Amino acid sequence: MRDRYFSADPAQRSEARALYESVKHLPLVCPHGHVDPRLFAVPDYQFGSPVDLLIIPDHYIFRMLYSQGISLDALGIPRLPGAVTPADSAGRDHREIWRLVCEHWHVFRATPTGIWLRDELADVFGITLKLNGQNADAIYDAIAEKLGSDEFRPRALYERFNIEVLATTDAATDTLEQHQAIRESGWGGRVIPTFRPDALAHIALPGWREQIELLREVSGEPVHEYASFIRALEGRREFFKSLGATATDHAALTAYTNRLSAGEAGAIFQRALRGEASANDARQFGGHMLMEMARMSGEDGLVMQLHIGSYRNHNPWIQAHYGSDMGADIPIRSEFTANLKPLLDEFGNRRDMTLVLFNLDETTYSRELAPLAGHYPLLRLGPPWWFFDSWLGMTRFLDAVVETAGIANLAGFNDDTRAYPSIPTRHDVWRRVCADWLAGQLIRGFIDEEDACAMMRALAYDLAKQTYRLDG
Amino acid sequence: MRDRYFSADPAQRSEARALYESVKHLPLVCPHGHVDPRLFAVPDYQFGSPVDLLIIPDHYIFRMLYSQGISLDALGIPRLPGAVTPADSAGRDHREIWRLVCEHWHVFRATPTGIWLRDELADVFGITLKLNGQNADAIYDAIAEKLGSDEFRPRALYERFNIEVLATTDAATDTLEQHQAIRESGWGGRVIPTFRPDALAHIALPGWREQIELLREVSGEPVHEYASFIRALEGRREFFKSLGATATDHAALTAYTNRLSAGEAGAIFQRALRGEASANDARQFGGHMLMEMARMSGEDGLVMQLHIGSYRNHNPWIQAHYGSDMGADIPIRSEFTANLKPLLDEFGNRRDMTLVLFNLDETTYSRELAPLAGHYPLLRLGPPWWFFDSWLGMTRFLDAVVETAGIANLAGFNDDTRAYPSIPTRHDVWRRVCADWLAGQLIRGFIDEEDACAMMRALAYDLAKQTYRLDG
Amino acid sequence: MRDRYFSADPAQRSEARALYESVKHLPLVCPHGHVDPRLFAVPDYQFGSPVDLLIIPDHYIFRMLYSQGISLDALGIPRLPGAVTPADSAGRDHREIWRLVCEHWHVFRATPTGIWLRDELADVFGITLKLNGQNADAIYDAIAEKLGSDEFRPRALYERFNIEVLATTDAATDTLEQHQAIRESGWGGRVIPTFRPDALAHIALPGWREQIELLREVSGEPVHEYASFIRALEGRREFFKSLGATATDHAALTAYTNRLSAGEAGAIFQRALRGEASANDARQFGGHMLMEMARMSGEDGLVMQLHIGSYRNHNPWIQAHYGSDMGADIPIRSEFTANLKPLLDEFGNRRDMTLVLFNLDETTYSRELAPLAGHYPLLRLGPPWWFFDSWLGMTRFLDAVVETAGIANLAGFNDDTRAYPSIPTRHDVWRRVCADWLAGQLIRGFIDEEDACAMMRALAYDLAKQTYRLDG
Repeated sequence: MRDRYFSADPAQRSEARALYESVKHLPLVCPHGHVDPRLFAVPDYQFGSPVDLLIIPDHYIFRMLYSQGISLDALGIPRLPGAVTPADSAGRDHREIWRLVCEHWHVFRATPTGIWLRDELADVFGITLKLNGQNADAIYDAIAEKLGSDEFRPRALYERFNIEVLATTDAATDTLEQHQAIRESGWGGRVIPTFRPDALAHIALPGWREQIELLREVSGEPVHEYASFIRALEGRREFFKSLGATATDHAALTAYTNRLSAGEAGAIFQRALRGEASANDARQFGGHMLMEMARMSGEDGLVMQLHIGSYRNHNPWIQAHYGSDMGADIPIRSEFTANLKPLLDEFGNRRDMTLVLFNLDETTYSRELAPLAGHYPLLRLGPPWWFFDSWLGMTRFLDAVVETAGIANLAGFNDDTRAYPSIPTRHDVWRRVCADWLAGQLIRGFIDEEDACAMMRALAYDLAKQTYRLDG
Repeated sequence: MRDRYFSADPAQRSEARALYESVKHLPLVCPHGHVDPRLFAVPDYQFGSPVDLLIIPDHYIFRMLYSQGISLDALGIPRLPGAVTPADSAGRDHREIWRLVCEHWHVFRATPTGIWLRDELADVFGITLKLNGQNADAIYDAIAEKLGSDEFRPRALYERFNIEVLATTDAATDTLEQHQAIRESGWGGRVIPTFRPDALAHIALPGWREQIELLREVSGEPVHEYASFIRALEGRREFFKSLGATATDHAALTAYTNRLSAGEAGAIFQRALRGEASANDARQFGGHMLMEMARMSGEDGLVMQLHIGSYRNHNPWIQAHYGSDMGADIPIRSEFTANLKPLLDEFGNRRDMTLVLFNLDETTYSRELAPLAGHYPLLRLGPPWWFFDSWLGMTRFLDAVVETAGIANLAGFNDDTRAYPSIPTRHDVWRRVCADWLAGQLIRGFIDEEDACAMMRALAYDLAKQTYRLDG
Repeated sequence: MRDRYFSADPAQRSEARALYESVKHLPLVCPHGHVDPRLFAVPDYQFGSPVDLLIIPDHYIFRMLYSQGISLDALGIPRLPGAVTPADSAGRDHREIWRLVCEHWHVFRATPTGIWLRDELADVFGITLKLNGQNADAIYDAIAEKLGSDEFRPRALYERFNIEVLATTDAATDTLEQHQAIRESGWGGRVIPTFRPDALAHIALPGWREQIELLREVSGEPVHEYASFIRALEGRREFFKSLGATATDHAALTAYTNRLSAGEAGAIFQRALRGEASANDARQFGGHMLMEMARMSGEDGLVMQLHIGSYRNHNPWIQAHYGSDMGADIPIRSEFTANLKPLLDEFGNRRDMTLVLFNLDETTYSRELAPLAGHYPLLRLGPPWWFFDSWLGMTRFLDAVVETAGIANLAGFNDDTRAYPSIPTRHDVWRRVCADWLAGQLIRGFIDEEDACAMMRALAYDLAKQTYRLDG
């Protein structure tokens, strides 16, 4: 449907179409996401089955099916080593899983997941049937056939998708071998890493000491006290930069920031090494590490991203049986005005640094984030994250922030996905939302044609490129 | 007005009309409300005056008039025994009260109260005049005449309203005599009780010990310690089930849940019996009782409802002079992600149980409730409650939750009213909201015709029936 | 553009136009704002340059430009005495500043600031060019020429703007000499003061003791203990009333209220005089002063206004170099249901008093403010404040509060501005928002023509006049 998703009003719809078409062919800038770099390191990488590609890695899909009483086993989600998969699910046939999903596809009516898969099947795979139990097998075969063809190699899709740059997200201790392989392969695509040190910054996470051990190995620093820990991180950032990174990424439950003295930070670090750190130690250290990361960004020029407000692994039964990141992350209320103040006191007036904020509490958009971004040179607002990467979520975001922060304080779009073939669809939805929103502004006389076109291009392309310093 | 409330856009309006008409004649499923079962127990029950029926029991009406400086005395609201009603209001003539209300009816412009009464007068009473001081007497007479006729007996209205099932809400200690009388009368309507143990679960409520005394009497259990308290509740639930109950209802200021050991719970129970329980005891015991109620639901199959976030009886002067539930309940901020976690840890993965959540803080819709319901098999989201049972309130609810939780995790509609003759109007508004919302989704291409029709029927009828296990 | 900002739907647009035109010529009632009374005290007052008038005093403008990396120095914002202005900015030419602003005017696309200035230039100055670097000089000259003419004297504009009454906001210790001069000048305009005692009520503010000293001087009271402090405030209120004041204004970070005994209040007052008050003392005293101010309003009849939720001077670097109120005030989360309870317990049922509430946390609109205002006779809701004085902000406000509180519990519009020539534009935007919102209600059948017209007039004119007791 050519004008899909645009307003019902014919005049607005026609303006929206014109705006959308003005940016439809602009390249995709993908400054934040979770695609596996191996897809590009191996020249002839092949995706597995349709279920391997579309179902098993997509927690948007299996979380909703799970809420309706379908077990993760039945969806082919592997249990953790040592956990026993129920006999009737073990080694389940992928075609059978696909059929189960299609039979229940109606639960995704009016959801972004439903829209993404429909548009992806149509635009990338050329399949326009609506998923259901009857046509499940035929669609499975059609997808599988495509996946076997040369046009469906990741590098070929990169060209076809018109991607200009794609950033992955990588642990601070990652050796970035895949990224090195991509560089060395001589392939022309631009796939760059992003430095994510969460596993090292949050001392209360299980496995923190193993992560420190890893850091020791990859950095060559002793990391038995705070000073060399910091030096090791600085070194890793340089290494990431050498492979093209322009940004870092940080996640925290709250936006709490707080500068510790080197002595205080060092003492907590020692307690953490001994496994004796308290919950408050973890909070203080986490808040301090955000300050340190900002300081390093001020020095090395990496753009800092901060994702706030996800209560990870909320369901202990799921975590015990299937592991982390299994669709059971639930948002909590967030606060920025007080929590970010120490960081802003130190870095907020810097015009040569950028901190991009993301969160899952929409009430902060108009109350805190837009007023902060509309004042501090440091800040930009990331696009709506996770559950809010949706038509209405994006519309609410624009409604809530643009009047106070303008669009010049936004960071454009991130697809933030691990589902590589859905990337064009996700950008398409964002571009359509922006076109429709700007058309509404235009037709009501808030902005004129010239403004609308310039804003359209900025939201679709320029802001992301400029915010993440990708023009270099 | 045939197309009332639908979008101004002609294309959307026409789709909305078609969707609405597809469900207009479906029976009304009323799984949660506060109609007095006596209306059905007495075969020829007669409503009193128009003021008895429409004004005195309706705190939506008198709260707003009170906010504009009209005393509750002038509206015929009785003072508590012992309180003196001002001389100029005592025994006020109902016709005079009606005139006062009509003279001020303009304060209800653009409110759900205004819309409900207008539609109810038109659709149930055949009165299409707009209330004002001039026509107050004529309308009073017209309503009174209708109320005297046989068609306005509650049982006759039950048929005319096309009600399929109507649940009342009843104290856990209620002997359900009215419900027994309905059963024994041989009348064909389905009016069922709902188990509400709040007066027993909240040990800080005034009169708690009297409630325990009542429980002792009706249960035959000693209830002088925690174990028999629990046994007594289990017994009452069985009794409610024997009279058709399929659900329980619970209200709490916050969603705090927390499992106590039997010893801890028992110790608090003893302190409460001695009148020595602290505020923290009350909080812990209340949080524990929610866990216990969930456990019992897992055993006896009653659907659990939880209403969170109303600060009851906020105005002490009103409470002292007129009693509780007099329009002075004010919402507070709510939190579910952390508060419900203990309950979800224990029961969240149960596919054979249902917990329906309601609350008065719209910010939780997209931030917490939809993400929780879109993951945990246990959860369903109740329709917008109280102040949000309104056109815009419902629209915001659908906008906020459907993208993340789909509609399959919703509980359909509850009218939640004590105003029996307003029931068709309330369902009508919900059905119109859903029709208009789905028409918007359809015309913009998010869903197709088949989806829209199926979702329309589910929202109007199926989801309520299925969630509350009313197909049995 | 005649129909600017109205809905795209032709039918709604045409109703909106008719409603708007029905109130377009009503006088402007301005019960709360920050215009300098000197503008009216001096008969032939002249505004300075376009930059003096439009840029330097407007923190909406310079905050956004600052967020984009333009220094306040470059915008002509003076540094505090003692601070050194960078050489390249000192004494910067106003024409050059204007050009800089125009070159960056695109950052105000789709913001209220952009809309206000555009409409103000067109409607007040007759300039319809769109600001940019090319036409900056020509526009500067055109504005400067107008500012030099007699029609641009504040008193002439008062007539042209059709202002009925204009309230300023004045420190409790102000001698109101400008107001006295206006009275004595025999000029026919109605410009009245508003009593704002914040600098005296918040004992933790820097300079509080100097303020007490000032109070001592202007009141003639000793003010060395709490009793004469209170007497002095009562006296000042009387003085303000004698010059036409009908209202007071109070700002606080939170809505915390709390009645102290005279002994407790007195003890804190003494500690504050000695510079020994704690943060908790400040909180308790602030909460108590709100109770006292309400008590005084109950006695002297001044309408009380309360502005909650702005974290003032969030950016310490800006405050240190440029002073307070420099665009770095950031909203925080607010709470009213619990915080206001002590005040409402004491005054909430008073029908002869009015408290107008404002805040910067939109989540409170539907959750707390509308339910409170729809019950307590004391309360009215002020229009959307600060960042929310915008098209979408106003629309969200009406959507969130009218269903629960009606419009009879609203306070109409405040322009709340220090930018005198923007006053007609700000009222125009409010009137257009209301017209469009009511047209939407009308065309969907929630209200009829008669309702829409009456509500339009009330929102545009009557409610402000009545709430602030300006008919006297």
